[in-house]
Amino acid sequence: MTTLMTVEPQQLTPELIDIPRFQDARGTLAVTEFTDDLPFRPVRQFVVTGVPAGAVRGQHAHRKLQELLICARGSFSVTLDDGHSRVTVPLDAKGPALHLRSMVWASQHDFSADAVLVVLASRHFETDDYIRDYDTFLKLRRGT
Amino acid sequence: MTTLMTVEPQQLTPELIDIPRFQDARGTLAVTEFTDDLPFRPVRQFVVTGVPAGAVRGQHAHRKLQELLICARGSFSVTLDDGHSRVTVPLDAKGPALHLRSMVWASQHDFSADAVLVVLASRHFETDDYIRDYDTFLKLRRGT
Repeated sequence: MTTLMTVEPQQLTPELIDIPRFQDARGTLAVTEFTDDLPFRPVRQFVVTGVPAGAVRGQHAHRKLQELLICARGSFSVTLDDGHSRVTVPLDAKGPALHLRSMVWASQHDFSADAVLVVLASRHFETDDYIRDYDTFLKLRRGT
Repeated sequence: MTTLMTVEPQQLTPELIDIPRFQDARGTLAVTEFTDDLPFRPVRQFVVTGVPAGAVRGQHAHRKLQELLICARGSFSVTLDDGHSRVTVPLDAKGPALHLRSMVWASQHDFSADAVLVVLASRHFETDDYIRDYDTFLKLRRGT
């Protein structure tokens, strides 16, 4: 009788990056210097605001693009899925930013009404870089 | 009798830059690609939120730093002063961004409660780049 050895897939670990924040009587400032402390050199930025209660954003993966997700105000959560395991990371306006690697299926959800999501991206916009179909993502991730 | 020819200082003209914005049922997205369409290549970004009513930010000039001021949500105004003339530019979450050149005294004011100011900066943070005294700014600007 043959014993099959199963290899447990590694648990997906979120990679968090500190963002300096300064609060005084004139408001709050969240700063990101584009230095070697970042996992990549940003070439694009976008800001997401006004997400209605219950809305879910993202729900795709990128072939090559990496992103840094910064919560500049309010709060929201990000669910990461590498095809083997899932983890949900709550982000708020006091904590670190989240490094979103390529080939990770991600969705952003549970936005507070005042939430501001700032994304720094490693690549310019490319339609072909998106994987919008989950089954396709799973096949690519699992090499099947 | 000698006739003195006086040269009127040129009126300060705000330089506005279009920012693509996409609005759908899941919120609003304001995108900035760091390409040659921008007046400089950003190496730093910061986000200002939670500015109390009546608060005034800025009130300094930079010797070398240039900035792009983007209103990602709500509204506020920017007053520019080149030592010769002043102009106030209202910014909101639907309009263009404002290119803030070096050696221009600037203040941001009249923030709405939900205002989000995103700044892209041409240089890393340098204390010596700030001119915080208005008389010093005027002397430098007027060459006196």
